[in-house]
Amino acid sequence: MLRREINELLTQTGPGTAMGDLFRQYWIPAFLAEELPEDDCPPVRLKILSERLIGFRDSNGRYGLIDEFCAHRGASLWFGRNEEGGLRCAYHGWKYDITGQCLEVPSEPDNSTFCTNVKLTSYPLVKIGDILWTYMGDPAKQPPPPEFEFVHVPPEQTYTSKRWQESNWLQALEGGIDSSHVSWLHSGALKSDPLFKGARGNKYNMNDLKPFFEVAEADGGLFVGARRTAEDGNYYWRITPWVMPAFTLVPPRGDHPVHGHFWVPIDDENCWVYTFDYHPVRALTPEERQAMMDGFGVHSENIPGTYRPVQNKDNDYQMDRAAQRRGEHYSGVRGIAIQDASLQESLGPIVDRTKERLVAADSGIIKARQKLRQAALALRDEGIAPPGVDPAHHRVRSAAVLLPKQESFLEASRDAVTVMPGVPQHSV
Amino acid sequence: MLRREINELLTQTGPGTAMGDLFRQYWIPAFLAEELPEDDCPPVRLKILSERLIGFRDSNGRYGLIDEFCAHRGASLWFGRNEEGGLRCAYHGWKYDITGQCLEVPSEPDNSTFCTNVKLTSYPLVKIGDILWTYMGDPAKQPPPPEFEFVHVPPEQTYTSKRWQESNWLQALEGGIDSSHVSWLHSGALKSDPLFKGARGNKYNMNDLKPFFEVAEADGGLFVGARRTAEDGNYYWRITPWVMPAFTLVPPRGDHPVHGHFWVPIDDENCWVYTFDYHPVRALTPEERQAMMDGFGVHSENIPGTYRPVQNKDNDYQMDRAAQRRGEHYSGVRGIAIQDASLQESLGPIVDRTKERLVAADSGIIKARQKLRQAALALRDEGIAPPGVDPAHHRVRSAAVLLPKQESFLEASRDAVTVMPGVPQHSV
Amino acid sequence: MLRREINELLTQTGPGTAMGDLFRQYWIPAFLAEELPEDDCPPVRLKILSERLIGFRDSNGRYGLIDEFCAHRGASLWFGRNEEGGLRCAYHGWKYDITGQCLEVPSEPDNSTFCTNVKLTSYPLVKIGDILWTYMGDPAKQPPPPEFEFVHVPPEQTYTSKRWQESNWLQALEGGIDSSHVSWLHSGALKSDPLFKGARGNKYNMNDLKPFFEVAEADGGLFVGARRTAEDGNYYWRITPWVMPAFTLVPPRGDHPVHGHFWVPIDDENCWVYTFDYHPVRALTPEERQAMMDGFGVHSENIPGTYRPVQNKDNDYQMDRAAQRRGEHYSGVRGIAIQDASLQESLGPIVDRTKERLVAADSGIIKARQKLRQAALALRDEGIAPPGVDPAHHRVRSAAVLLPKQESFLEASRDAVTVMPGVPQHSV
Repeated sequence: MLRREINELLTQTGPGTAMGDLFRQYWIPAFLAEELPEDDCPPVRLKILSERLIGFRDSNGRYGLIDEFCAHRGASLWFGRNEEGGLRCAYHGWKYDITGQCLEVPSEPDNSTFCTNVKLTSYPLVKIGDILWTYMGDPAKQPPPPEFEFVHVPPEQTYTSKRWQESNWLQALEGGIDSSHVSWLHSGALKSDPLFKGARGNKYNMNDLKPFFEVAEADGGLFVGARRTAEDGNYYWRITPWVMPAFTLVPPRGDHPVHGHFWVPIDDENCWVYTFDYHPVRALTPEERQAMMDGFGVHSENIPGTYRPVQNKDNDYQMDRAAQRRGEHYSGVRGIAIQDASLQESLGPIVDRTKERLVAADSGIIKARQKLRQAALALRDEGIAPPGVDPAHHRVRSAAVLLPKQESFLEASRDAVTVMPGVPQHSV
Repeated sequence: MLRREINELLTQTGPGTAMGDLFRQYWIPAFLAEELPEDDCPPVRLKILSERLIGFRDSNGRYGLIDEFCAHRGASLWFGRNEEGGLRCAYHGWKYDITGQCLEVPSEPDNSTFCTNVKLTSYPLVKIGDILWTYMGDPAKQPPPPEFEFVHVPPEQTYTSKRWQESNWLQALEGGIDSSHVSWLHSGALKSDPLFKGARGNKYNMNDLKPFFEVAEADGGLFVGARRTAEDGNYYWRITPWVMPAFTLVPPRGDHPVHGHFWVPIDDENCWVYTFDYHPVRALTPEERQAMMDGFGVHSENIPGTYRPVQNKDNDYQMDRAAQRRGEHYSGVRGIAIQDASLQESLGPIVDRTKERLVAADSGIIKARQKLRQAALALRDEGIAPPGVDPAHHRVRSAAVLLPKQESFLEASRDAVTVMPGVPQHSV
Repeated sequence: MLRREINELLTQTGPGTAMGDLFRQYWIPAFLAEELPEDDCPPVRLKILSERLIGFRDSNGRYGLIDEFCAHRGASLWFGRNEEGGLRCAYHGWKYDITGQCLEVPSEPDNSTFCTNVKLTSYPLVKIGDILWTYMGDPAKQPPPPEFEFVHVPPEQTYTSKRWQESNWLQALEGGIDSSHVSWLHSGALKSDPLFKGARGNKYNMNDLKPFFEVAEADGGLFVGARRTAEDGNYYWRITPWVMPAFTLVPPRGDHPVHGHFWVPIDDENCWVYTFDYHPVRALTPEERQAMMDGFGVHSENIPGTYRPVQNKDNDYQMDRAAQRRGEHYSGVRGIAIQDASLQESLGPIVDRTKERLVAADSGIIKARQKLRQAALALRDEGIAPPGVDPAHHRVRSAAVLLPKQESFLEASRDAVTVMPGVPQHSV
């Protein structure tokens, strides 16, 4: 249970809020690279951290993310022409470059310097992996670019999609570090999903419905360990890393690719869920890639031309009571991603955490909230840079390992939770 | 005309409001029985008196009405599994019985007593007739179950439907005790509707457009008498009973079944209209039952799978100006139920009663508001139980009778307005 | 840039606001005449200056504009029957004439005078040209009817349409006096639109992208002159008249009909755009009329049965990036009217003018805002009737003329900007 003020602190990320300032310390996903596929392609609108922006890729291949609205009288630059090294407003022809600098105000006299003083808010936009990342904070404090493994493996080893979720970012993130719901909500998928089924570890997931949680500090966030009973005096440990503020990895299963998410606030009642799969040492198979594109695993099938899932709030997520009764989908909703989205959206746009009743299995969530709050306050009150800004903090992995009962999960798994190029994931 | 405060008092029924407390003294319809047709069937969401609840029928046929949201982290139990004696949340498997008592928190140790202290808000849900009734008040003051005649006659003699109305409950109820609009708004239907046409009394309705109203106190509410001139020195009296807070009957016509309504607040801007037809002494004919299912009489044709009428605000109630001009539908809108709904919704979500101009024909409405207000204040300030709680108050009938001019309508109709098993309605 | 208070003053037009009072000094368009095509035709709902009204044409051909809601209990008169000299409420039969006077309350006794004291708000509604005009101010100050040329030429010389715009009225008006966006936003249309292309003057529009603006006072508002370089030591002047509060004319092109608009507030976030074409001295050709009906020129193609454009906010105005790239539609949006609407709506429902950066080319807009503000304050504080009320102020024309460089545009064009029956527009 949280006090109302703390719930507000953690869920509000607009300009000037404590959590909004925290998010503005990090590189965060702004677009999939596929959204700006070529030079001079159409500009794309983006709402992120409650700011309305427009992204474009200029004639020279440079990416820009600037205020959506022209400095003149506020027309949307989405109607603009992206050509000849800048984005030109369709209303009166004012033209901007990727830094938001106004290059031209056509109605002004030839010798006018008016436009030199016109500059829109802008943020850097850089392609790393399949994602265009932005940093919306103080330029003087811009950190080095992100080093998450999924964006640094060769392209054939990784796949990223995204979907719009109609809820606050935090309740989405909380799903990502909550390993205990898998045995319930996703129990059908463990048996049937091509990207989940068949791993030896799945049986531990299904047989022990009382995982014990241990949460360990990481440089950039947390490692949440979920311990289940295995045979021969061993424990089956599933280790979920969280890198602040919004990066999580799902513990792996057998040789399947590793799943993960980045949870990005659109505004306080919506978020983008960036969803990826990668394998540290091998190419994704054509079947795996096709399954991801088809919305299996942690991906979703989206309405063509949008990032809104086909199964959504307006159609009750295509609830299928017969499939629920047959045990095919535990909640009656098809697909892991939408199983999560449907439950998380059912909490309401911003869940009222003054009413919840947490249990031991929520210890990862409890600890993550504490760290977010402490980091936001330390930043606001003392200017301390939060964990997860340093790219070294990004080089973590999830793991699923069998360990003798007496061993400490984190000590025994140090290697398993660290990115080691050329070494496969530790996965039962 | 009402003062603003009084309008607010009468129209607000959420938790903690005076009128909300009044409603919570009574058994009120929560569902049609058809919504929970069998043991372990899908749970159904319900908003009622501004509370969000979920109804279900467990493996043993017991009905439950509990908080929609899991006590853990607030997921909707609508995604839950209704099986093995309870409703299990699909997120982490917490399980509840029909009293809201948590039966199981799977992640807790086997010997944990945690769940014994977890209990969701719950209300009793009982089937009487075709309706599942709930009582949302203090359990210590729970009254005996309702005794309205329409739910106690044999099933073949009764039929109930429901529809969503996009307005406050009170302006809907007011339509139900307003006998004077029939000669106008429903004048087309009196001539053509299979459940209305052909009664001898209809001609009085159409010939005398200046009914005189007399309102008499009843133990549970009011009898509103509308007097019209008939032949041979008689008056034609149509007597509409209102049992507090929200039960009304339409005066009968010939041997047609008797129509009636229960007006139930969803929230302050929406209500459920429970609509029934019954005959005290004979089975409904197949033709009558079919007409009801087809949306004739006071019923509506609903969008399949929902209780929203096919004709609604979004399509201007399928207004047909040609039919209006021909006199087929007086307002251009087809069907008695939607004729009422369309006008009542046109008042706005909550009509501003500070602007109205009431006339003598509104005396039933005026008196009903007074009684509601007095009862709400007497309950709030002095704890006095309101009229209509005692099931004896439910045993009333509507009547349509010819009386000599000098007779008092209520004295002469004592028998007619009282439920007498085996005795048909008094109906001209 | 405007201060917030001034932006609010200029954009709010509901009852009791300063700008709302200003609008209520004038005759303004309420309907197209086609909306009330015959005696006793269906009544039509209208929201205008934030008031909800209903217009009808009675059995004697008289037009009325009265409160939408019955004085009794507030039912919408839209469901009413328009017959036998008045509009009768479908609920209880109360009947009103075109002045809002209640003619009959059927439930009252025959000798009752009750209805004589019941009168709904009403405004005069008169047909002049293809428009039904209303005056919503103090009856004692009702000015003579409008004398704009487009409603006084013979019917074969004029055509009017209307469309709903989802923005405040002022940002729509500002587009109407902003001659500098034509060379950008509408550059494609100048080459292809049947009602624009082919005029000799178009080349000046396209060749000189730095028009110089001169704004001159007019009795009823302003003349905004946009000067572009032409050959032989001449300037090409396009002169846009604005008659307060909301009438603008587009400068003409060759012998094409003259375009113009009336921008009428629905509420503070929506407006009606009345759009007309007329030729002072000749009939519109069948081709011209057909092009207007098809949505060319400044007209729009509307969703049948409504005045909402087919291309609208909900479908991103049917943005066509390929057509944008080809230069066919500069912003990718088809049609001059929707090019304007899309940009103006992109500013948001009420643009925040505290953030804009105006330039010399906006001098017409700046001056118009000043005049609106001064007139609203002079009216409010001193009761001074504003410019544009006197019908003599309406007799202005737009013009497009070549003038020697040394001549003052307004002095040299006095005749050109004045309505002279039988004399064609001055148009290059």
